[in-house]
Amino acid sequence: MSGRLFVVGLGPGSPDQVTPEARAAVAEAKFFYGYKPYLDRLDLTPEQVRVASDNREELSRAEAALAKAAGSETVAVVSGGDPGVFAMAAAVCEAIEAGPAAWRDLDITIVPGVTAMLAVAARAGAPLGHDFCAISLSDNLKPWDVIEHRLTAAAAAGFVIALYNPISKARPWQLGRAFERLRAALPAGTPVIFGRAAGRPDERIETMTLAAADPERADMATCVIIGSAETRLIARGERPPLVYTPRSFVPASQ
Amino acid sequence: MSGRLFVVGLGPGSPDQVTPEARAAVAEAKFFYGYKPYLDRLDLTPEQVRVASDNREELSRAEAALAKAAGSETVAVVSGGDPGVFAMAAAVCEAIEAGPAAWRDLDITIVPGVTAMLAVAARAGAPLGHDFCAISLSDNLKPWDVIEHRLTAAAAAGFVIALYNPISKARPWQLGRAFERLRAALPAGTPVIFGRAAGRPDERIETMTLAAADPERADMATCVIIGSAETRLIARGERPPLVYTPRSFVPASQ
Repeated sequence: MSGRLFVVGLGPGSPDQVTPEARAAVAEAKFFYGYKPYLDRLDLTPEQVRVASDNREELSRAEAALAKAAGSETVAVVSGGDPGVFAMAAAVCEAIEAGPAAWRDLDITIVPGVTAMLAVAARAGAPLGHDFCAISLSDNLKPWDVIEHRLTAAAAAGFVIALYNPISKARPWQLGRAFERLRAALPAGTPVIFGRAAGRPDERIETMTLAAADPERADMATCVIIGSAETRLIARGERPPLVYTPRSFVPASQ
Repeated sequence: MSGRLFVVGLGPGSPDQVTPEARAAVAEAKFFYGYKPYLDRLDLTPEQVRVASDNREELSRAEAALAKAAGSETVAVVSGGDPGVFAMAAAVCEAIEAGPAAWRDLDITIVPGVTAMLAVAARAGAPLGHDFCAISLSDNLKPWDVIEHRLTAAAAAGFVIALYNPISKARPWQLGRAFERLRAALPAGTPVIFGRAAGRPDERIETMTLAAADPERADMATCVIIGSAETRLIARGERPPLVYTPRSFVPASQ
């Protein structure tokens, strides 16, 4: 079995945020599986082959890529951001566990990337400077009440919260409900960052308070970061404010 | 005021995981502030100046870098991994908030990087494939009981947990206590990954069960990832197992 599979993170979108390791994996592979907007970012030769699929077909995409690699090919599955964060690496693992034994013999390399919350945080300041969590707001793969419970638990414990997959046409109300939940647990002035397409020409980074947070400002390309009760803004005149969470935490009772 | 400050993430250690954006910022800056092992990674010209400081002097390092930039210089503060995750970006923001008004006028660019947990996760499989959190285990800047409470809350809510700063000479017992806490909340067989120096020549990635997790396996360069109750291993014969957390979550009661 000489097949090889790369699972590659292309970063948030800017070519300047693609690692040399990711670039080398793309140069080495012959077949590329992914959601079309990610495949469109690749600068391929005429010999390299794109196989595009829809963004809700992760498992069948992983299976197709593994089957191709098992035919002694060099294959890349591509993700935006980092492949291990709500992206293709887990889908590939699921497919391997359920698939033919031969898939376990494949040479598999997962290439990490800059995930969206890091790119958004960098544009805003340092909102993830203290303990934080990352939650996918999609209830396609877990019940909504589990998500609400996690939001409440995270806010109560003092975590900053990064929300992936905040909204889509099929999931229009979830982000608003999440904000409602969090308003019960956090101060009204808690900063909320809507980070869209960080590092790309169509980037839009907006900061508002939790009280004013408007789900309409998010789309599928947005990562939403909700501060903890400690998260602060530094006004800078005409420059956008810096949003950051201090490294230190002193409980209110002390 | 023409001073410029870059806060640059150099990634986990391999030059192949340094983004082109980080490389460009390093090429542009003249003065470099950081912990010496990170400064040692830079390939500088004779005109570029390193100012090394100890790893517990983040705030004074940030102040020195800001003061230098305010003298119309181009300055870089460097971090390993991503500067926004338990690293220099928050220290720079703290210094700006408390410092002279002129520091708010500086042109500040934060350059994200691949943070340790992503690099470790990629080497192990996809342990961060479901909701997860990142906790600094250092009790220098927050009380230990807050950390214990967050560990328990995170495990109970079903988050995978990435621990940064798990151990040091001055903090020898905290990781063992953290494992004790988590053993009360998670199955004995929960996978724990000790990821040291991911992507570097001295890389060491070890997976064991929570029951057997040995704090002695961690050092300052280690990121520890503790699975949720859902995290699984895929045996692969002579290859190391893949550790992953499924994207789906079905509560036990359903």
